[in-house]
Amino acid sequence: MSVTLAELATRFGCELHGNADTVVDTVGTLDNAAERAISFLANPQYRSALQRTRAAAVILEPAFAEGCPVAALITTDPYVTYARIARFLYPAPAHEPGIHPTAVVDDDADVAATAQIGAHAIIGAQTRIGEGVSVGPGAVIGNNVSIGAGTYIHARVVLMDDTRMGERCVLHPGAVIGADGFGFAREETGWLAVPQLGKVVIGDDVNIGVNTAIDRGSIDDTVIESGVILDNLIQIGHNVRIGEHSALAGLCGVAGSARIGRRCMIGGAVVINGHISICDDVFITYHSTVLRSIDEPGKYSSSFDADKAQRWRRNATRFRRLDAQLRRRARK
Amino acid sequence: MSVTLAELATRFGCELHGNADTVVDTVGTLDNAAERAISFLANPQYRSALQRTRAAAVILEPAFAEGCPVAALITTDPYVTYARIARFLYPAPAHEPGIHPTAVVDDDADVAATAQIGAHAIIGAQTRIGEGVSVGPGAVIGNNVSIGAGTYIHARVVLMDDTRMGERCVLHPGAVIGADGFGFAREETGWLAVPQLGKVVIGDDVNIGVNTAIDRGSIDDTVIESGVILDNLIQIGHNVRIGEHSALAGLCGVAGSARIGRRCMIGGAVVINGHISICDDVFITYHSTVLRSIDEPGKYSSSFDADKAQRWRRNATRFRRLDAQLRRRARK
Amino acid sequence: MSVTLAELATRFGCELHGNADTVVDTVGTLDNAAERAISFLANPQYRSALQRTRAAAVILEPAFAEGCPVAALITTDPYVTYARIARFLYPAPAHEPGIHPTAVVDDDADVAATAQIGAHAIIGAQTRIGEGVSVGPGAVIGNNVSIGAGTYIHARVVLMDDTRMGERCVLHPGAVIGADGFGFAREETGWLAVPQLGKVVIGDDVNIGVNTAIDRGSIDDTVIESGVILDNLIQIGHNVRIGEHSALAGLCGVAGSARIGRRCMIGGAVVINGHISICDDVFITYHSTVLRSIDEPGKYSSSFDADKAQRWRRNATRFRRLDAQLRRRARK
Repeated sequence: MSVTLAELATRFGCELHGNADTVVDTVGTLDNAAERAISFLANPQYRSALQRTRAAAVILEPAFAEGCPVAALITTDPYVTYARIARFLYPAPAHEPGIHPTAVVDDDADVAATAQIGAHAIIGAQTRIGEGVSVGPGAVIGNNVSIGAGTYIHARVVLMDDTRMGERCVLHPGAVIGADGFGFAREETGWLAVPQLGKVVIGDDVNIGVNTAIDRGSIDDTVIESGVILDNLIQIGHNVRIGEHSALAGLCGVAGSARIGRRCMIGGAVVINGHISICDDVFITYHSTVLRSIDEPGKYSSSFDADKAQRWRRNATRFRRLDAQLRRRARK
Repeated sequence: MSVTLAELATRFGCELHGNADTVVDTVGTLDNAAERAISFLANPQYRSALQRTRAAAVILEPAFAEGCPVAALITTDPYVTYARIARFLYPAPAHEPGIHPTAVVDDDADVAATAQIGAHAIIGAQTRIGEGVSVGPGAVIGNNVSIGAGTYIHARVVLMDDTRMGERCVLHPGAVIGADGFGFAREETGWLAVPQLGKVVIGDDVNIGVNTAIDRGSIDDTVIESGVILDNLIQIGHNVRIGEHSALAGLCGVAGSARIGRRCMIGGAVVINGHISICDDVFITYHSTVLRSIDEPGKYSSSFDADKAQRWRRNATRFRRLDAQLRRRARK
Repeated sequence: MSVTLAELATRFGCELHGNADTVVDTVGTLDNAAERAISFLANPQYRSALQRTRAAAVILEPAFAEGCPVAALITTDPYVTYARIARFLYPAPAHEPGIHPTAVVDDDADVAATAQIGAHAIIGAQTRIGEGVSVGPGAVIGNNVSIGAGTYIHARVVLMDDTRMGERCVLHPGAVIGADGFGFAREETGWLAVPQLGKVVIGDDVNIGVNTAIDRGSIDDTVIESGVILDNLIQIGHNVRIGEHSALAGLCGVAGSARIGRRCMIGGAVVINGHISICDDVFITYHSTVLRSIDEPGKYSSSFDADKAQRWRRNATRFRRLDAQLRRRARK
C-alpha cells in the first residue's frame, strides 16, 4: 500500500516536518530502511542511527525532531504510532473460510461458516468455533471447547477438552492449553495422580507464544484475563490467575495457584513460586525468582549480571562463608 | 456419581464427623465448593477458608476436625485421601478401542485390539502398542518402539525410533522422547555431530509433561525409572538416569550423563550440571543450580528471592567487589 | 559394518597399539562395551573405567596409551576421532524419496524429486524443497519457504512463511521457526501487536533442538549463521543474530535484538538480555544471566552452586543487608 506522509500525519495524529507529498509503501529500521520506507526512533540507544538513515521519514518524539535529517512524523509515543502505521501498511491477510478436506471435524462440533479449519486439523465434539476463527494445520481442538470470534490458532496448537477461549486471541504454534496440571499426592508407594477437574479460561485479546503450556485447574479453573500477552516456552501451572494486560517474557515459569496482578511485566525466565500473590503493576527483571508475595507495586530483581568467571568464583566462595564469617566476627 | 459420607468413610478408611447420610457428588475448593461437594484441607495456608466453606464435607487431619463447621472425613493424609476420593467420583473415561481411519499405521506394527489410535496418528514399523494403550491425535510413534499396557499418549507426542515405554505411563501433548542428544565434537572447522546410538528406556507409571524433551543416549541409554513424574517443558539430556519416584517441576534442565537418585524432589527451573550425581532423597528448591555432585540427602538451594530492584542492585554491586575488598582488608 | 583396527587406524589417521586384525562392528562406553566394540576415553573423569573395559579397542590420547589394557587407537583428539568412526560404522540411513499420499503439498510448491515428504506433512505455496531434503511426519512448512539440499526436518517441526533454511541442517521434533516475535507497543488500553515483518534466515549445517523456538524479525531478519548448534527448548527472540559455530545448550533464552558472536559456547539455561552484544569466543557457564554487552573473549559466570538450604538461607539473608551494613560501617 502506498500512502503520503500527509495522509499518515492526519490519520495517526502526528505533526509533520518535511514534504507532505512524499510517498511511503514499506517500513524499515533506521539503518536498513529503503528509500520509500518509514522508520521510527523509540529506543534512545539507537539515536546515532538517526543521522545516517535513508528512510523517507522517521516517526519520533518532539525532542529528536530537530536532529532528524529526513522528514519526520512527530508524536509523543513513536512506538505505538509505528505499530499503528505498520498495521495500516501491512493489514493481516484475510483468510478463506472453509474446512480443509483432510480436517477431521466431529459431527457435533459447531463451526461458524466464516471460520477456517486447516489441513489435518482435528475438532472435537460439542466444540464451538466462532466467526472468523482460524484453526491452523495440524491443530488439535478437544471436546467441549469454545473459541471466540476472530481468534487465530496457529499450526499444531492443542486445546484440551473444556477450554474457554475469548475473542481475537492469537495462539502461536505448539502452544498447549488445558493439559493436566502437575498434581500428585505422595503415598508411601509413590505418586498418586490427582484428577485435574478444572479447565482453562482465557479472556479476549490474549497472545500465547510458541510451545507455551497452560495447565487446566485441579478443581477451580486456571484463568488468563483479557489483554494478557505470553511469550514463547512459558509454563503456567494449574489454578494460576494472571490479571489483565500483564506481560510475561519467554521461558517464565509460574507455579500452581500463584496470582499475578494487572499490568505486571515479568522479564524472561523469571520463576514465580506457587500459592503466592503479586499485586498490580509489578515489574520483575530477567531471570529473577519470586519466592514470596509482593504487595507493593514497583521493580523487583534477584539476578546477577555475568562477571568474569574467575572473579565470580572468588566472590561466590566468599558468599558461601558470609554468614559464618559475620557470626565469628560478632562473637569477637 | 453420588455417594454418602458413610460409604466414603468406609471405603477410604476415614473417621466420620457429621451426618453419615449426607450425599456428595462432586469436589470443590473450600472457598468455592457447591452444596453437594466434598472439599479438603491439606495446606495449612488455606486454614482460614475452612470457617467459611459451604462444602457438604471436608477431608482433614485430626488437628483441624474441632474447628470444622461442616461434616468431616478425618484422616492422617487428607491430600492422598482427597486424591483417592476424586478418582472414585471422576473415574477416567474408558476409551473406545480402534484405529481412526486417518491414522497411518505401518503394516509391520503390532497394535493390540484394545488400543485406541487417534486421528492422524502415525505408527512405525516393528512397533508394539500394548493392551489398552491410547495414542492421541497427531502423535508420531517411530519404528521399533514399544509401549506397555495402559499407557496414555496424548495429542502430538513424538516417540522416536527404539523408545521403550512401560505400563500406565501418561505423556502429555507435545512431549518428544528419543530425539538425538546434543552430542557434537569440536573440530577446527566447526561442530561434528556424534551419532546418538542409545535409546530412551522409561519404566512404569511415569508421567511426562507438555513439550518436555528426553533425549536418546549417545551410546548407552537414557533411563527414566518407574514412578518418576516430570512436569512441563523439562529438558533431559542424553544418558541421564532418574531414579524411582523422583519428581521434577516445570522448566528443569538436566544435562547429559547426570544421575538423579530416588525420591528426589527438584523444584521448578532447577538446572543440573552434566556428569554429576545426586543421591536419593534430595530436595532442591526452585530455580537453583547444581554444579557439583550431592552425596548427602537433604534440602539444597542457590536461588535468591526477588528484592526491590534498587536495593538488589546496590547489594549486587557490593557482591561484585566482595573478594577484592576482603583481600584488601586482610592485607591491612 | 565390520572393520579391522588396521583399517580404522589408516582411515582415521591414528597410531595403533595392539592386534591390527582385531575386528570391531559396534561402539560402546568403557564400562559397557561388548567384545567387538570400540570405545573412547575423552573425559579424564572416566579414566578409572579404562582399566576394567572389555572393549576390543579404545580411542585415546597418547598420555593414556600406556595404561590401556586392550588395543588402542591413539590420536590427539579422541572425541573427534570417535565421532568420525561412529559415523563410519553407523552411516545415516538413506531415505526413500517421494511424497507420502497423506501429505498435503500445495500445487505451487517446488519439491525436488529426491526429497522425502512424510505422512500428514503440509507444504505451502511457493515453497522450495531442495534435493535430498527430508520433511518428517506431521511437519508444517508454510508459504514461500526455502529449504536447502540435504536438510533433515523431523516430525512436527513448523517452518512459518518466508523462512530461509540452508543446506544440511537438522531440525528436531517440535521446533518452530519464524513465528511472530514478542513485539507489542503499550497503549493506555493495553498491548498493541506490532506486525512482525522480517523473517528467519538460517545458514548451512545448523542444528536446532526439540521444541526450540526462533522468532521472525520485526522489520529486519533474525539470523542464525552457518554451523550454529542449538539444543532443546531454546527461545531466540526476534532480530537476534548468532555467529558461526556458536553453541547454545538447552533452555537458553536470547531476548530480542541481541547479538552473539562466533564460536561462543553458552551453557544451559543462560539468559541473554535484549539489544546487547556478545563478542566472539565467549563462554558463559550454566544458568548465568547476561545483562550487559561483553566485549572481551573469555569465560563468564553469574550462577551459584546449590548449598545446604539452611546455610544458603543464612547467607542470602546477610546478602540482603550487605550494602546497608557496609554503609553503616563506613559512616562510623
